[in-house]
Amino acid sequence: MSKPPLHPALSPLAELVGTFEGPGTGHYPTIDPFEYRERVTFGHVGKPVLAYEQATWDPVSEAPMHAERGYLRPAGDGLVEFMIAHVFGITELLEGDHDRADDGRDRLRLTTTSLGIAGTAKPVRHVRRELRFDAERLDYDVWMAYREVPETHHLAADLRRVA
Amino acid sequence: MSKPPLHPALSPLAELVGTFEGPGTGHYPTIDPFEYRERVTFGHVGKPVLAYEQATWDPVSEAPMHAERGYLRPAGDGLVEFMIAHVFGITELLEGDHDRADDGRDRLRLTTTSLGIAGTAKPVRHVRRELRFDAERLDYDVWMAYREVPETHHLAADLRRVA
Repeated sequence: MSKPPLHPALSPLAELVGTFEGPGTGHYPTIDPFEYRERVTFGHVGKPVLAYEQATWDPVSEAPMHAERGYLRPAGDGLVEFMIAHVFGITELLEGDHDRADDGRDRLRLTTTSLGIAGTAKPVRHVRRELRFDAERLDYDVWMAYREVPETHHLAADLRRVA
Repeated sequence: MSKPPLHPALSPLAELVGTFEGPGTGHYPTIDPFEYRERVTFGHVGKPVLAYEQATWDPVSEAPMHAERGYLRPAGDGLVEFMIAHVFGITELLEGDHDRADDGRDRLRLTTTSLGIAGTAKPVRHVRRELRFDAERLDYDVWMAYREVPETHHLAADLRRVA
């Protein structure tokens, strides 16, 4: 299939289209700190939504770790919606806004408005994500509330464009 | 990357691995009936979860219509969990069981245990899905409750293996 042009509604997110890769770190009061490598791809088929695909793997053994996938879409007036399915039995709906950080880079600030927790999944209560991006770089932070732990920083990664 | 072996936990779902394509039809009290073509792919990376990717398009113009993606995983004792993100601002968590239909084919019967509805999305209240499959065929039905409409049949498709 020939590549369709980017939908005009996606132009504020155009720099996300492609693939980014790099290192990340995780920590949380209930677990040991860990490191990972991550690849993130945002694609499109000409509609006003970006398809999102993410995978992480062990930096040493290269064994697959986490994966999540879904869609990111502009919702008008600088608002964005991020629909994510996780391998470990969770669906995550985040809503928030798109603005510029103090350093002039684009920023998405999102919080969960819905979390689906399957019977075998861990009882995450709340997630907050911040993504910053330009044409060559995508970095993010994730905060999480889990069981009795209030919202606490959990993940940070700094990815560079590879495609 | 070389293809890892299928995780033993996925052996009951092994016939889903690959790509299926075929026609579908949709109807609902609030909309005009419609037809579509659909492609579904289930993949894996050696972990006990299937990655799910789906897209539909207009049978005549070939313009993209719907898309959804997520993960399907066995949850023990014949239970399954299906985590889905939709392009149109919805996350869908379904849980149910895996058994055999009267005709001997494998069957997954799933109902939503959580639905995330973004601010711009349509207020779906409930979804029920039944998927039937063997090595060459994947067909399904979807029922939906939406606004004041109680659970009503919405989608049916009959796909054949293409890869």
